[in-house]
Amino acid sequence: MSKIETNQKYFQLAKIFIEKVPFNQVIGLELKHISSERCEIGFGMKPELIGNFYQKILHGGVVATTLDSVSGSMAAVGLLEKHAFPEDEEFAERIKKLGTIDMRIDYLQPGRGEFFTASAKLLRVGNKVAVTRSELHNENGEIIALGTATFLVG
Amino acid sequence: MSKIETNQKYFQLAKIFIEKVPFNQVIGLELKHISSERCEIGFGMKPELIGNFYQKILHGGVVATTLDSVSGSMAAVGLLEKHAFPEDEEFAERIKKLGTIDMRIDYLQPGRGEFFTASAKLLRVGNKVAVTRSELHNENGEIIALGTATFLVG
Amino acid sequence: MSKIETNQKYFQLAKIFIEKVPFNQVIGLELKHISSERCEIGFGMKPELIGNFYQKILHGGVVATTLDSVSGSMAAVGLLEKHAFPEDEEFAERIKKLGTIDMRIDYLQPGRGEFFTASAKLLRVGNKVAVTRSELHNENGEIIALGTATFLVG
Amino acid sequence: MSKIETNQKYFQLAKIFIEKVPFNQVIGLELKHISSERCEIGFGMKPELIGNFYQKILHGGVVATTLDSVSGSMAAVGLLEKHAFPEDEEFAERIKKLGTIDMRIDYLQPGRGEFFTASAKLLRVGNKVAVTRSELHNENGEIIALGTATFLVG
Repeated sequence: MSKIETNQKYFQLAKIFIEKVPFNQVIGLELKHISSERCEIGFGMKPELIGNFYQKILHGGVVATTLDSVSGSMAAVGLLEKHAFPEDEEFAERIKKLGTIDMRIDYLQPGRGEFFTASAKLLRVGNKVAVTRSELHNENGEIIALGTATFLVG
Repeated sequence: MSKIETNQKYFQLAKIFIEKVPFNQVIGLELKHISSERCEIGFGMKPELIGNFYQKILHGGVVATTLDSVSGSMAAVGLLEKHAFPEDEEFAERIKKLGTIDMRIDYLQPGRGEFFTASAKLLRVGNKVAVTRSELHNENGEIIALGTATFLVG
Repeated sequence: MSKIETNQKYFQLAKIFIEKVPFNQVIGLELKHISSERCEIGFGMKPELIGNFYQKILHGGVVATTLDSVSGSMAAVGLLEKHAFPEDEEFAERIKKLGTIDMRIDYLQPGRGEFFTASAKLLRVGNKVAVTRSELHNENGEIIALGTATFLVG
Repeated sequence: MSKIETNQKYFQLAKIFIEKVPFNQVIGLELKHISSERCEIGFGMKPELIGNFYQKILHGGVVATTLDSVSGSMAAVGLLEKHAFPEDEEFAERIKKLGTIDMRIDYLQPGRGEFFTASAKLLRVGNKVAVTRSELHNENGEIIALGTATFLVG
């Protein structure tokens, strides 16, 4: 497949991987972009995502969910590239084994905004473990949180 | 106030602090217990909490949200005890300043079960920072995840 | 082997595993105890371990080194128990593959004291990953730091 | 002061801050560069830094020490810039209060090499907390580890 075809295939797969997941639908996550280098998802503010009485800001758990999802999708791409894009059944087998080992979230600023974008990149994919870094920004480009996550891929 | 009265006051406050938060209502978090030593919240499995197609398990973001909430409530208790239980306005002022600095989540086992319990304890409350450790178990007492979180309290 | 014999064998192995490592010798780490449940190592304050001009306290890196060592030893025990205590060559092969994936350290209080004790316990050993929690105390039992670490074991 | 004068002053201060610390001398840390944007320190491999019998690789604690030092120096710069470069006594007072709250280290590859470079950048400096990200590379530019750290600055 060409690079463009590969990225289109990633997009189709990641769209399902992200948008069909029930809890991601609760938040309203939408895939924006995916390639070997970067995954990006977005969502809009809505009342049920609020985590603080006094201020209209995102719950820390919404931030965590979003960073977990964008990071996991990026790790899935890493896993696919490592194995030269396996056929569909093997793909499904591999993705089933993908699991978050641990994640750190740094909350840099209150989650204030109308639209949020989470992006992730892959720092390393080994035979057993993948490591990602991710960020959440609001529509003004202000950074809200950082994530660092480790995934089991083998 | 007696110890029992203090714990009752904590319970009333934490009940609001946890259960009125919109995103906690999405998950269905309920306060079970709170004291100087320990906070415990519970929630039941339901379809919208699922995070994995192939297996009927909790989304990592649900785990993170729950550990964030139980840990934040425990940090709030630490903050109150540090300041000899302030009156209501001062209480509100202090709680407004409480914020998660960062959190680590270790995903030990897939989030499989019917009912889940998250508990947190306080490891340290200083003048500026509080540190908590938390755990999530299912109804069989199997541990699903661990949390370590740092909160700004001053 | 009986439980006592097993613990003696662990002690001999862990003593080499910890005390022969060059950088552990720089710090002066000594194995105090090891069993299926717990590993404990100690070291004394000395001028070259200092990390802060103004206060005579441990360098954060000394704290990290100590928690890494005690946690890694505990993960090694977990790995051995998982595989029913393999014979010596297989043991060496397995231990070679043991690696720290990531570690979080929470610095709770300045590292002040004359003698320090680090202890670790195993939270989970799976087929691929082990998770440990560790603590560092001074001779007065004051807690200085916490560690949470993930190890590759498979 | 001009930008160049400021960077020279930072360099002088950070040189003391890093190179005079006893435990940093044990490792052999040397300041290479410091500015508002970035801090960089280096050190060479030597036998006492080894952490693994079977392979000639850095102890995880050496990695942690180096990332802690480069990150703390970067946080100090952030603290100074936040307060418009205070005079020397006030500077000393502020630096005394600088403390690591917590740090996460991701060990991406074995610490193999002859010369290592650690670099850090500042992700945010608030009134109370600063957050840094750091990396360790060997002389071939291979990445060995990542750090994420939170510092108390207020």
